[in-house]
Amino acid sequence: MKLYIGNKNYSTWSLRAWILMKKSGISFEEVKLPLDTPQFYAALEPVTPTQKVPCLVDGEVTVWDSLAICEYINDIYLSGRAWPADKASKAKARALAAEMHSGFMALRNEMPMNIRAVRRVVLSENGQQDLQRIDQIFSQQMDEYADRGGWLFGEFSITDAMYIPVVLRLITYQMAVSDGAQKYVDHVMACDALKAWLDEGLKETEIVECDEAGEAV
Amino acid sequence: MKLYIGNKNYSTWSLRAWILMKKSGISFEEVKLPLDTPQFYAALEPVTPTQKVPCLVDGEVTVWDSLAICEYINDIYLSGRAWPADKASKAKARALAAEMHSGFMALRNEMPMNIRAVRRVVLSENGQQDLQRIDQIFSQQMDEYADRGGWLFGEFSITDAMYIPVVLRLITYQMAVSDGAQKYVDHVMACDALKAWLDEGLKETEIVECDEAGEAV
Ligand SMILES: N[C@@H](CCC(=O)N[C@@H](CS)C(=O)NCC(=O)O)C(=O)O
Ligand SMILES: N[C@@H](CCC(=O)N[C@@H](CS)C(=O)NCC(=O)O)C(=O)O
Repeated sequence: MKLYIGNKNYSTWSLRAWILMKKSGISFEEVKLPLDTPQFYAALEPVTPTQKVPCLVDGEVTVWDSLAICEYINDIYLSGRAWPADKASKAKARALAAEMHSGFMALRNEMPMNIRAVRRVVLSENGQQDLQRIDQIFSQQMDEYADRGGWLFGEFSITDAMYIPVVLRLITYQMAVSDGAQKYVDHVMACDALKAWLDEGLKETEIVECDEAGEAV
Repeated sequence: MKLYIGNKNYSTWSLRAWILMKKSGISFEEVKLPLDTPQFYAALEPVTPTQKVPCLVDGEVTVWDSLAICEYINDIYLSGRAWPADKASKAKARALAAEMHSGFMALRNEMPMNIRAVRRVVLSENGQQDLQRIDQIFSQQMDEYADRGGWLFGEFSITDAMYIPVVLRLITYQMAVSDGAQKYVDHVMACDALKAWLDEGLKETEIVECDEAGEAV
């Protein structure tokens, strides 16, 4: 099984699929391609119709798109364990995951993931609303689940895979969050699989201009 | 079971959840709210944290977000039948659905769904690329499935629910597509459940300014 990913410093979508697979103990070959280079598109052209990462190739099966990869892994390799077991929690976990997948545009544009950097940004009104919603999600889930495993639904789920990149953005741009939300930030930052990703991201030297936002602090 | 939706003339996301439920013969109460009005937000405030439609309320369970609603309905009421049965097709169907869910921003902005209107727009480069990708998806799937039921994967699936609003955009803005893609457009437009939605959309009189794009033809 091969997972194509982008630069660890920048590629939020790649991190989602990668962390789900790592946290689930699934072994795979990682193919890292530098975003925004001819090499990137040349390598992906024969593999995926969208020429984006992440892309999973599992024998005959090709899955592009981070959320679809997570659902595929959950179906085929995890017997459904990557979502909470009870039906109401699963529905909520999926709603949160899909909300992230199709939303938070302002936050994404104004606070691109950039693991190496420490920056200051002034958020637009939409960006601030996005951040408030993130705080609400983290703190509400921690109210319910902090003592039951520390992830958004206690055990690690696809919803965590979808929201972990936001935690890294909070850190790069030094955004203060409520005490409840901070519990989740701390829990995420203590995750060993994530630390391995961060270590490699810190060593990367490629610069993707459009993801370099904010003022150095 | 209650499904909150927006104006049928405009609300692409609502149509997705609604058409999956109709096509699957699931009975539900439809609560239609006029987008962009105080009444809309007042009605949704106690129901959903995002105050967006669609939102499904099924007893204790609340699911916001169109894709999450489709997955929920598929899990709980359809024993998985809303995705293709074989694992490779299911993976592809999910990738296409997720690609729509998180992408096609230019097409969405430049060609808002507007069932009543006939319009002309000049697309940006990104808009044109989005349109080409749509054509590629429709024509490739029709190559494989047109004789096996006419939907993107033969039988109706969640992927159709995700792409049907694009078909309506093609019609409003009179976009020419390849012969292969046209087969899908024709198949979609012959769907009785969709016709019922369109009939009601045509009767609506509310105007949502930001969704009124292009020049009248
Ligand atoms: N919806 C896709 C989005 C993937 C995406 O946009 N990936 C970016 C990198 S994080 C990419 O490959 N960009 C390359 C490009 O657009 O040229 C997913 O969830 O996987
Ligand atoms: N990701 C959501 C998006 C829902 C969405 O943006 N809905 C629009 C109407 S089509 C809405 O409720 N807008 C009201 C608002 O944003 O104020 C989904 O898939 O359901």
